[in-house]
Amino acid sequence: MGSLGTNVLENNLGCGLNPLDPEEFRKHGHMVIDFLADYYRDIEKYPVRSQVEPGYLKKCLPDTAPYNPESMETIMKDIQNHIVPGLTHWQSPNYFAYFPSSGSTAGFLGEMLSTGFNVVGFNWMSSPAATELETIVMDWLGKMLKLPSSFLFSGNGGGVLQGTTCEAILCTLTAARDRKLNEIGRENIGRLVVYGSDQTHCALQKAAQIAGINPSNFRAVATSKKTNFGLSPESLRTAIAKDLESGLVPLFLCPTVGTTSSTAVDPIGPLCDVAKEYGLWVHIDAAYAGSACICPEFRHFIDGVESADSFSFNAHKWFFTTLDCCCLWVKDPSALVKALSTNPEYLRNKATESKQVVDYKDWQIALSRRFRSMKLWMVLRTYGVANLRNFLRTHVKMAKHFEGLVAMDKRFEIVVPRNFAMVCFRLLPPADDGENGSADDRANELNRKLLEGINSSGRIYMTHAVVGGTYMIRFAVGATLTEDRHVNLAWKVAKEHADSMLNSMANGHI
Amino acid sequence: MGSLGTNVLENNLGCGLNPLDPEEFRKHGHMVIDFLADYYRDIEKYPVRSQVEPGYLKKCLPDTAPYNPESMETIMKDIQNHIVPGLTHWQSPNYFAYFPSSGSTAGFLGEMLSTGFNVVGFNWMSSPAATELETIVMDWLGKMLKLPSSFLFSGNGGGVLQGTTCEAILCTLTAARDRKLNEIGRENIGRLVVYGSDQTHCALQKAAQIAGINPSNFRAVATSKKTNFGLSPESLRTAIAKDLESGLVPLFLCPTVGTTSSTAVDPIGPLCDVAKEYGLWVHIDAAYAGSACICPEFRHFIDGVESADSFSFNAHKWFFTTLDCCCLWVKDPSALVKALSTNPEYLRNKATESKQVVDYKDWQIALSRRFRSMKLWMVLRTYGVANLRNFLRTHVKMAKHFEGLVAMDKRFEIVVPRNFAMVCFRLLPPADDGENGSADDRANELNRKLLEGINSSGRIYMTHAVVGGTYMIRFAVGATLTEDRHVNLAWKVAKEHADSMLNSMANGHI
Repeated sequence: MGSLGTNVLENNLGCGLNPLDPEEFRKHGHMVIDFLADYYRDIEKYPVRSQVEPGYLKKCLPDTAPYNPESMETIMKDIQNHIVPGLTHWQSPNYFAYFPSSGSTAGFLGEMLSTGFNVVGFNWMSSPAATELETIVMDWLGKMLKLPSSFLFSGNGGGVLQGTTCEAILCTLTAARDRKLNEIGRENIGRLVVYGSDQTHCALQKAAQIAGINPSNFRAVATSKKTNFGLSPESLRTAIAKDLESGLVPLFLCPTVGTTSSTAVDPIGPLCDVAKEYGLWVHIDAAYAGSACICPEFRHFIDGVESADSFSFNAHKWFFTTLDCCCLWVKDPSALVKALSTNPEYLRNKATESKQVVDYKDWQIALSRRFRSMKLWMVLRTYGVANLRNFLRTHVKMAKHFEGLVAMDKRFEIVVPRNFAMVCFRLLPPADDGENGSADDRANELNRKLLEGINSSGRIYMTHAVVGGTYMIRFAVGATLTEDRHVNLAWKVAKEHADSMLNSMANGHI
Repeated sequence: MGSLGTNVLENNLGCGLNPLDPEEFRKHGHMVIDFLADYYRDIEKYPVRSQVEPGYLKKCLPDTAPYNPESMETIMKDIQNHIVPGLTHWQSPNYFAYFPSSGSTAGFLGEMLSTGFNVVGFNWMSSPAATELETIVMDWLGKMLKLPSSFLFSGNGGGVLQGTTCEAILCTLTAARDRKLNEIGRENIGRLVVYGSDQTHCALQKAAQIAGINPSNFRAVATSKKTNFGLSPESLRTAIAKDLESGLVPLFLCPTVGTTSSTAVDPIGPLCDVAKEYGLWVHIDAAYAGSACICPEFRHFIDGVESADSFSFNAHKWFFTTLDCCCLWVKDPSALVKALSTNPEYLRNKATESKQVVDYKDWQIALSRRFRSMKLWMVLRTYGVANLRNFLRTHVKMAKHFEGLVAMDKRFEIVVPRNFAMVCFRLLPPADDGENGSADDRANELNRKLLEGINSSGRIYMTHAVVGGTYMIRFAVGATLTEDRHVNLAWKVAKEHADSMLNSMANGHI
């Protein structure tokens, strides 16, 4: 590190310093910690959604990598001047977009340790602590969620940390696919059908596509406002029956606990009943809302999970663990292992052959894997179950508070019931706004403009969804730094923009 | 953070402190930096391969997560006492196993920044800097490798950072598969054939399996000592011709530059010629050796890459960038996008619709993605092209030195020619050792015992491979902290163990 001239390329690795010199590491490590601590301290001064235009960075950086080293000071200056303006600040307390990416000091430190050790934990042997801590932490977390013991190592199931829900779904779908094809023959891959709802995350469709499921055999079963956009067991049964009649083979169902558009919850128990009748693998995608289920008052949302085959949630969403960290549990690890294992000679070792260890490479897509359990372990221990529940409850309370503010203003409406820490709302168009088009179209256009106006201001950031044809603004609480005052500010900003829009409309300016 | 009693759960997120409080972050961040700097300073005192037994950690940790918070001091003590002994120290200068996982201060700092910002860069909009820096860095690196401009954004191709080569192969294979099936019809998925050699990394077979390729249509074409375990174009042609005769459809070829067993190099140009004749997608897997190709003297190993469709190498292996970081370039990004894109309403945004931006979610398996380019950018700038080349050359020089030491001792042999920084060697069995079995079996057993003896000592760590029936010890130089003295020590340790084994054999003790 530092400005090494090419004339000092003598010792260690051909230059004046070893790239992992402990004292350089210490010095520059402290520098970056201070940079990040200051970033968090000052984060409110940045526009939440980045204001840059496409192509902005190309104008700031050279076309080729430098031939000679650059100093840490130069690089940090570029980060402040060129990278920070291009960030959308997911850690800002004024960030209410998509779903949260809730960081924490403990999660960060765990990631640092994992990065520092930089072990490649593909099997037990390659770093026993990485595998064993993961099995322990997954059992801890499974117990916190009151998952049935059949999902825990202590009950012959087990948990694994994946990068994302997309990977978790792809792995379980591949396991389900191969189990089925082993029964009915490989040549029937084109007959397999995958089921979700029209609210299921796009990860399911993508996983099905990657796994070679015929795209025409992907069912996004329609939902409606009547079921609050939850998948109805009757609709599922109808879809399955129709496919069976056509000679297709129902394979996989993915109910959601906390959909991306509106945090809708599919009724797991009744859906599992239908699925089991037809022999489907059921994977529960609780990517966002799973964490809330460590609180007794939210646990009922995953009632019925005991009938599912697998369950996952993202600790990197709303559980204070930095990206990426998806927690996946399966009842039958051998189904994963059969579909995903490899056993090349160069990885053979006594521990694997003893069959007394878990080799996580056989539970995931990739061979190599980071020591992800470190950060989850740090989060669980640093905060403890009691505080983690309180953190989540505080977010829900803030969302409730926002919901109350919206509800008191008759110009707005709450579009769907709030289940967790996200409020879906919209501005109602004035009764006679002199605009053409259906009332729905007008309302949608109004809210699209309102949201773009708010986000362009940079003061807060929210995103949208459309359910049942209704464009709505999603207000997702969960950024770690958010406090009551930020929620109040958010409502103030939303109202100001609405006031100004409605005034302009009344004056005929829009 | 710290020991918070449950009686102070009042303010911020329901407890005494916000989990992202800047001053707590600063204090504990510095603590972990010092811990890691000390770890690197003292790393030689640890046995390289962990000495723990399966199940060791369960005995040290409780069965459930703590209800109340634990102090940073308690947790750090547990890390030192319970986690560190269970680590295999990939960063140790005495680590010569598998392939290196070469960390660096710059790579670590980049990962810290990425973790600290904790943005979720699924599309341009969600954090423009994450996308734009990646496109810039991938062009920089592509130029360093002298990839043809058709692989660069500046030439209508483009690069993307994946987690691992497994993911890179799965993505390109999926793209190739869908392109082919769109031509010949989805119902023909069972006719598609994937080609590698018997030396190709298991990632290819696994990717083919996940992508729904019939396992019986996976060809591991045999190699032999005659071609130094490189895939011969004639063998490939024969395999393809046979499959065509059987009515199958050749789809995908994955040549390797630097195989895992012996760093063999498949002849890319001639293989591409055959593949192109039959319309196969060619993906070059240079996971290990790709980085060396930034040195002009090694660049010839990827000659012919201009005829391939995609190319990848792992910056987390031998390029000072912490796990995970696989660099993938493709000539036709639209093939990836067609196979992997999703366009749900909740992600719609103006930038995407303008078609002026890259949305990397459509170039990979998962939706969410970390800001991986940050660490690669830090590595490139901090060290510069000149030093990076020198680092790699120094590793190669050390491997050459070790090779020389082995060659001078007539009791040993070099099994395959050394191409990069890995030496494959074995101990020859004494002419008349009074043991039964073929000479080959005896040699293999001898080296198995020798390696286990060396690794059990904890002084150095090497692993093995078997090529052409020959068990050999792999000595892979590349850990960042390794210096000449560690290589000399490694040879001393190997020789001592061999001396002691051969003496015991001479005395009839083995």
